[in-house]
Amino acid sequence: MKIIIIGGAGTIGQAIRKELATRHEVIVAGTKHGDIKVDMTDKQSIIQMYQTVGKLDAVIAAAGKVHFAALQEMSAENYHIGLNDKLMGQVNLVLQGLAYIQDNGSFTLTSGILSQDPIRYGSSASMVGGALESFVKAAAIELPRGIRINVVSPTVLTESLDQYGEYFHGFVPVSAAKVALAYSKSVEGAQTGQTYRAN
Amino acid sequence: MKIIIIGGAGTIGQAIRKELATRHEVIVAGTKHGDIKVDMTDKQSIIQMYQTVGKLDAVIAAAGKVHFAALQEMSAENYHIGLNDKLMGQVNLVLQGLAYIQDNGSFTLTSGILSQDPIRYGSSASMVGGALESFVKAAAIELPRGIRINVVSPTVLTESLDQYGEYFHGFVPVSAAKVALAYSKSVEGAQTGQTYRAN
Repeated sequence: MKIIIIGGAGTIGQAIRKELATRHEVIVAGTKHGDIKVDMTDKQSIIQMYQTVGKLDAVIAAAGKVHFAALQEMSAENYHIGLNDKLMGQVNLVLQGLAYIQDNGSFTLTSGILSQDPIRYGSSASMVGGALESFVKAAAIELPRGIRINVVSPTVLTESLDQYGEYFHGFVPVSAAKVALAYSKSVEGAQTGQTYRAN
Repeated sequence: MKIIIIGGAGTIGQAIRKELATRHEVIVAGTKHGDIKVDMTDKQSIIQMYQTVGKLDAVIAAAGKVHFAALQEMSAENYHIGLNDKLMGQVNLVLQGLAYIQDNGSFTLTSGILSQDPIRYGSSASMVGGALESFVKAAAIELPRGIRINVVSPTVLTESLDQYGEYFHGFVPVSAAKVALAYSKSVEGAQTGQTYRAN
């Protein structure tokens, strides 16, 4: 298969690449690093990325920004960061990708454990994660040509504990390599409309 | 209790009013009808509504627009209609309402069955519903002063079958009066962070 990973230079993205590159052609896209540059919040940038890489069997999105702050300090604008970036960035990868994805191809998006298991400061991440999981469930029943769509919901990564661990006390961390297996299941399996909880 | 219902002139809103008005002071707000006019997509209009009504024990949002269309015909702009109106309109009612809600008061928002049980043309409604349900779960753990927040997820209404029935074949409809009980449970009960599935 020919697979593109948007956010492929991140911790999860690298692990997905490692998992899939032994048996597939993997292209890495990212805002700063990777084989091809893309700004997921810019529709034209997404179209240009797809035009450059051509037809694909699988699109994996492992990228997206949200704003973390206490609920009482969050403004509507703060929520719009996540809605425009992590949510609509990934949704636009699907909408624009439809013209480039092969029959029976797949989209795999990324939400996060906070959609179901919230933490302080995480209400925007929860909102965006819940939106993605329900969007995927809905999109799955309308996609044409056997195209599938799933979302992976990772918990906090073992590799990220140094950076984020203080916000996730009590959460059982998972290695990026284990999280990557959920993306493999989505791409190489046959299910659709699923949320794979990697925790 | 002093309770405001935004969208109180709609089918669900009227049923909620009927359920609650026998034992509480109920104010109805809406874009066109009601005791007070409010445009939920306009922060200043929301603030003005709260300034006019003063301190409240419960805020109920039973309003919100989303765009219905086939997935392949949906643009990013189409999704933003629901994100700006039904999602962020209700979230702004919470953010701005915090200054007016009494200790141990409550917010009750409205999602919809499509977040869990999708139909054709409904991917935006699913997205927005999932976002609201996860937002409520997250906001509940950060709200101060014993303030609670829940969301009601109604299925298709018996009263709306003439209008929307063809999109909901096979769904068991529920009367607005039965859906209104979920709002009563949210306002008059003690739970928080819940999604009450009225179906």
